[in-house]
Amino acid sequence: MGLKSFVEVPRESHFPLENLPFGVFRPKPSSATVAGDSSPPPPPRPGVAIGDFVLDLSVISAAGVFDGPLLKNSKCFLQPSLNMFLEMGRPAWKEARSTIQKLLSADEPTLRDNASLREMSLLPMSEVQMLLPAVIGDYTDFFSSMYHAKNCGNIFRGPENPIPLNWFHLPIAYHGRASSVVISGTDIIRPRGQGHPMANSPPYFGPSQKLDFELEMAAIVGPGNELGKPVDVSDAADHIFGLVLMNDWSARDIQAWEYVPLGPFLGKSFGTTISPWIVTLEALEPFVCDAPKQEPQPLSYLAEKKHVNYDIPLEVWIKPAGHEHPSIVTKSNFKHLYWTIAQQLAHHTVNGCNLRPGDLLGTGTISGPESESLGCLLELTWNAQRSLTLNGSDRKFLEDGDEVIFTACCKGRDFNVGFGTCTGKVLPALP
Amino acid sequence: MGLKSFVEVPRESHFPLENLPFGVFRPKPSSATVAGDSSPPPPPRPGVAIGDFVLDLSVISAAGVFDGPLLKNSKCFLQPSLNMFLEMGRPAWKEARSTIQKLLSADEPTLRDNASLREMSLLPMSEVQMLLPAVIGDYTDFFSSMYHAKNCGNIFRGPENPIPLNWFHLPIAYHGRASSVVISGTDIIRPRGQGHPMANSPPYFGPSQKLDFELEMAAIVGPGNELGKPVDVSDAADHIFGLVLMNDWSARDIQAWEYVPLGPFLGKSFGTTISPWIVTLEALEPFVCDAPKQEPQPLSYLAEKKHVNYDIPLEVWIKPAGHEHPSIVTKSNFKHLYWTIAQQLAHHTVNGCNLRPGDLLGTGTISGPESESLGCLLELTWNAQRSLTLNGSDRKFLEDGDEVIFTACCKGRDFNVGFGTCTGKVLPALP
Ligand SMILES: [Ca+2]
Ligand SMILES: [Ca+2]
Ligand SMILES: [Mg+2]
Ligand SMILES: [Mg+2]
Ligand code: NI
Repeated sequence: MGLKSFVEVPRESHFPLENLPFGVFRPKPSSATVAGDSSPPPPPRPGVAIGDFVLDLSVISAAGVFDGPLLKNSKCFLQPSLNMFLEMGRPAWKEARSTIQKLLSADEPTLRDNASLREMSLLPMSEVQMLLPAVIGDYTDFFSSMYHAKNCGNIFRGPENPIPLNWFHLPIAYHGRASSVVISGTDIIRPRGQGHPMANSPPYFGPSQKLDFELEMAAIVGPGNELGKPVDVSDAADHIFGLVLMNDWSARDIQAWEYVPLGPFLGKSFGTTISPWIVTLEALEPFVCDAPKQEPQPLSYLAEKKHVNYDIPLEVWIKPAGHEHPSIVTKSNFKHLYWTIAQQLAHHTVNGCNLRPGDLLGTGTISGPESESLGCLLELTWNAQRSLTLNGSDRKFLEDGDEVIFTACCKGRDFNVGFGTCTGKVLPALP
Repeated sequence: MGLKSFVEVPRESHFPLENLPFGVFRPKPSSATVAGDSSPPPPPRPGVAIGDFVLDLSVISAAGVFDGPLLKNSKCFLQPSLNMFLEMGRPAWKEARSTIQKLLSADEPTLRDNASLREMSLLPMSEVQMLLPAVIGDYTDFFSSMYHAKNCGNIFRGPENPIPLNWFHLPIAYHGRASSVVISGTDIIRPRGQGHPMANSPPYFGPSQKLDFELEMAAIVGPGNELGKPVDVSDAADHIFGLVLMNDWSARDIQAWEYVPLGPFLGKSFGTTISPWIVTLEALEPFVCDAPKQEPQPLSYLAEKKHVNYDIPLEVWIKPAGHEHPSIVTKSNFKHLYWTIAQQLAHHTVNGCNLRPGDLLGTGTISGPESESLGCLLELTWNAQRSLTLNGSDRKFLEDGDEVIFTACCKGRDFNVGFGTCTGKVLPALP
């Protein structure tokens, strides 16, 4: 049996007492005050998900609930973002987790029996608006699924040596655009841009004709490192607070034309969606599994004592405009990543590059080995050479009105540790 | 004759009354208070350079000097960065410039005849520490010199089609690392990393053996744009506050091994140095010149009514450890850029990508057509196939102890509009 909270948690919930993911939200204005009310929206504050509720950490912090040595006098939960808490590191994270787990447990009266504190601090999820959980200084996107690397190489560069030589020696990555990272639920406007020209014609300009999703997860950085001071691979996990789902929306026609020689730019920078709840590495601990064997052996700065991943089943669904229900298009798993998040972080800093709390490290598209586990439409339709069928509707790439829904849930024997969803709907391009 | 200030401005100064570049500084603790003083350093505040002095904008703002309609009640000069002022846009920038130009002019008594205000607001440059002028949300680096693109293509990909096909159709760029942008004068630790392996050997790991500078300038973004709302090329200049010098330090061995297929990453992210004084587009107006003719004609979203550059002579000097004087290694000019900063900004946003005040848009290495006008050692030594001589000392790439000094100065008939210097010294790699 799982842990028991006095808050009702349905058995299939992503957010039982074993999970306790962190996010940032603001209460929605209540319907009574909407009409004619011009007061500013309530400020953003940190929260934790429990069942179908959000625990307002600013309220319970102000009530003096955090009485451990690290959090007792801290203002970290009175901030509009999690950055200050992220910077405090694992000991503070563990203290927060155990305080909250105790506070919400069935046999703990502090909150359970305090009606007014409960009223103020526990809000139904339907009555909050989720926001970006952290100020993201820099966003980096890796390329760590071998299946994805191989398929992309095949499609873009042909079947001889589809995977570049360097790929097995280092976790390849590029800098992404931090300004256009948006929270789940934000609409994505189809980008315009230059597409790859046919033979001798000038380049195409207009709305992207090959809009795609990329199924990814991303690590949220905790304590940073000083410029010039690399993080050792054996310390790397202590610099990672947790994981979110990430959709790295990609315009394949723009990307194909622009990416030589400096990499993806406008084909990606029009929007990147993350899920609102950061699931901590502590909560994921029961789902640790072996990571794929690495051959050749990585250089010593990338060599881990325990080369492990997490077993996180991932799904992508698409709901076309006018359809009542979404259709599933792929099932993959985080455990397929060849380079682990600890290796990614150690590599990122080995040249002295500084990370900051709140930085976002995308895994790259997580494709699995089977044709039903590919992480983007580029692979699923082999660059539009075939179609997917969504309950009667054909897809080569995304169409206007499509809503793309990622979800992830680790299934334990007695409880889930889930990520909720990461969603976005495609709006038509500007005229 | 140039404008005359009551502050003495030497004829060769980069910072006469016609320039008035903006930066952020803090007063150095005075020598009297250093010993045993544990008080916190004074907070950063905006300033303007005049001759060998810095005008403290927080002091003159608090004194009520800014009495124009846009700045009268603004707190923009009471901030630790210029971001708030950048966001206000060109009308506020013009108002600030004309207020400051009047305040500092020889025949204006307000400051000239107020000894105590002068004492508080005019600090010798030697008594201030310059800081990053803005919080940089995102840093983008373009690739807009045709000479540089051609030389790099020749060196890395061979003499057939050295310039990629897409280059003449769009201003190619990649996302850079914002966290490691540092202010002039910051030491740069030689990065460690993986270098390109020889034929069948494993990749090299260790200190970069091909550390280079890249002579660039960068635009500082003023008002941003909303996600999904591109900036028209004819409005683009109004989103640019001014220019700084930029050294995009590059480890060529790391870059060469990692950059396929996603572009530069650790070969660049260990440090990028900018000069402290942002020279405004207003101050550069007298140095407008034609930009290189573009063939083929750019697509309409990149077509400018006036396709213009600025005539900004650029120099790079290197001072090896133990040398008393630096030696000049190249002379180039901003006017060689094929894609203008307005085209760069319009392209950057055409897919809907949002820019924010303080964003940094690097031009890419500015090489000119002659062998003495190349913007990096990779080109100057043709990837170490020949040497440069620095007053008796040979260079293929940078050595530990080398100080690299960029400078730029527009020479008018009666006055200069200069950028000061952008410097950094190479420290040995970590053991
Ligand atoms: Ca990606
Ligand atoms: Ca560069
Ligand atoms: Mg994206
Ligand atoms: Mg750099
Ligand atoms: Ni950034």
